Order: sequence, then C-alpha cells, then structure tokens
Amino acid sequence: MLTVSEPVRLPFDPIERARELWVQRWGTDAHATSMATATSVMRVQQLLLARFDAIAGRHGLTFARYEALVLLAFSRDQRLSMSRIGERLMVHPTSATNIVQRLVAQGFVERVPNPTDRRGAFAVITAAGVAAMEAVTVDLEEADFGLGMLDADQHDTLFAVLREVRVGARDFTP
Amino acid sequence: MLTVSEPVRLPFDPIERARELWVQRWGTDAHATSMATATSVMRVQQLLLARFDAIAGRHGLTFARYEALVLLAFSRDQRLSMSRIGERLMVHPTSATNIVQRLVAQGFVERVPNPTDRRGAFAVITAAGVAAMEAVTVDLEEADFGLGMLDADQHDTLFAVLREVRVGARDFTP
Repeated sequence: MLTVSEPVRLPFDPIERARELWVQRWGTDAHATSMATATSVMRVQQLLLARFDAIAGRHGLTFARYEALVLLAFSRDQRLSMSRIGERLMVHPTSATNIVQRLVAQGFVERVPNPTDRRGAFAVITAAGVAAMEAVTVDLEEADFGLGMLDADQHDTLFAVLREVRVGARDFTP
Repeated sequence: MLTVSEPVRLPFDPIERARELWVQRWGTDAHATSMATATSVMRVQQLLLARFDAIAGRHGLTFARYEALVLLAFSRDQRLSMSRIGERLMVHPTSATNIVQRLVAQGFVERVPNPTDRRGAFAVITAAGVAAMEAVTVDLEEADFGLGMLDADQHDTLFAVLREVRVGARDFTP
C-alpha cells in the first residue's frame, strides 16, 4: 500500500478518535485499546519508512535496498546467496530478486556464480555499494533514525514491549 | 515491499544480532539502539499486517480494504468523497482509488455522484459491505489484534511511547 510520505499535521489525534468511535459502535474497551495500539504501530512504521526512504533517496537508494546492502556488508565475505538474502531481509523471494537486480543495475552489487550450486548465485557488495551504504548510514544516524524525540529509557521500554510481541508471535525463540 | 507472511521462528533475536554488528562496525551505542528500536517497529508492523491480512482474507478482504470499510461505516451518512478517503486512510490517492474500485467490484461499496462537485464522487458502504466489515471485526477482536501477549499496562506504555513519536514527527498536534 502506497502511504502518504509526509506527516499529515492533523489538529487532533486520529487514533484516539478512532478508539472513541470503536467503543461507541462496539462497546468493548479492551478491544478498542488493542486496535489503537496496533494502529499506532502501523502509523509509526509509515512515518519512519517515509523518512528513511527520503534519506536513502538522497543517495539513489530506497530503504529496502539500503537494508540489503547492510546485510551484505555485515556477512562473512560480504556475499550471500539470493535465497539467504530473502530469508534474512524477511521479504518474499520475488522482492529479494527485484531489490538485488536494482542494486546490480546501479553497480552497488555484483552477481557471481555459486561454485556449489550451478543454478544459484551469490550477491556481492561492491566498493561503490559500501560507499553508498556508509553515506546513508551517516545520514540515518544524524537523523537518529527518526526517533530523536525519545530518551534512553523510552527506547528501552519501546524495544522491550515490542520484543514481547515478537516473542509472542513466535518470530524468534529467546 | 512484499514481506514474508509467517513468523520466521529464528533461534536467536535477529534485531539484537544486528545491534551487536552495528556497534562492532560503527561503534556508536546510542545510534545502534535507535536502529534496533526502529527495526523493531518495522518488524512488528510486518507481523501484525500479515496476521490482519490473513484474517481479512477469510472474508474476501485485505486489511487495507477492511480499513476503508470501517472508515466509511464510521462517517456521517456512511459516505465519503474519494479525496477524503485517501486523506483519512493516510494513503496515496492512487491507492485510495484502487482500494475503492476493488470494493465496488465486490459489491461492498457503491459510487454515487457528488451533487456539489460534478467531477467528484462519493463512496457509500453497502449492506453487504457492513456485513463483511462486521465479520472481520469479530475475528480481529477474537485475535485481540495480534497483541494478546501484552497486558493492559504494556498496551498503555506502548501507546504512550508511540504517541510521543507521532507528536514528535508532527503527525498531529495534541
């Protein structure tokens, strides 16, 4: 879903408003609270992604392509198989292929044959790819990942509660 | 970006791992923390959206189309102009048009002329649209919006910290 790239600067909290309407219609406070929390996660994700895409865009990238470059830079030998890229980025294989194709066209990644799998291929980050990734990283850090309004305690709290959700959803086993 | 629809059940926390690698490479604890918090928001959004899309799918909908139906049901006269739909769903006008076209094709929404704007049109929710929306709502509430692992205090905390982010990003003025 294409989302608006700018904060909308409403004169009221639209999620609080939605919670009130939910209670009026369905009368269940606890469920309205869950709806409001889930909607908050989604709206903050939209705001962060729009900001990160704008930052990556200054360097000819999207946030998704930047994430793929970070993944490659962080891997042993700076290379990964296509299937591993999709798995680690947690995206559909089609998306992983698309992301890598764009990076190859930009000269930020090279495809090399996989010696142990003739049908497979490795993606390798190039020197230009490392430079672009480092430039985006500097800008993201300068923007404090769009979270400069939170203090250290709020970061810890947010990370801890979201970790409960990830564990509860069985996204990983602690 | 197409994301994997299932939790990946990794044997370690991939975001904690990314934080460690970030500190190793760039050596900035505070920035690594912001990266980890931002990544947590994005991953939880993916997990929730995948779950909500699966639930809406049981009733022939996506979560985005369900959201449009809720918006119409909550509006005065159960109708909204196309431009207002995009604005309130916080999606690009093209996405709003696409969502409404799909709902019209399904018989959940009807387009009616706007008497005060000959080029504009209203979208109106139909009785079948209300029924589908109510059915998805029951299932989402039964699933506690994918957040059943959080207690009331954790909900309040998560909502409050995310509200700070929304206010700080100027998404609304309290």
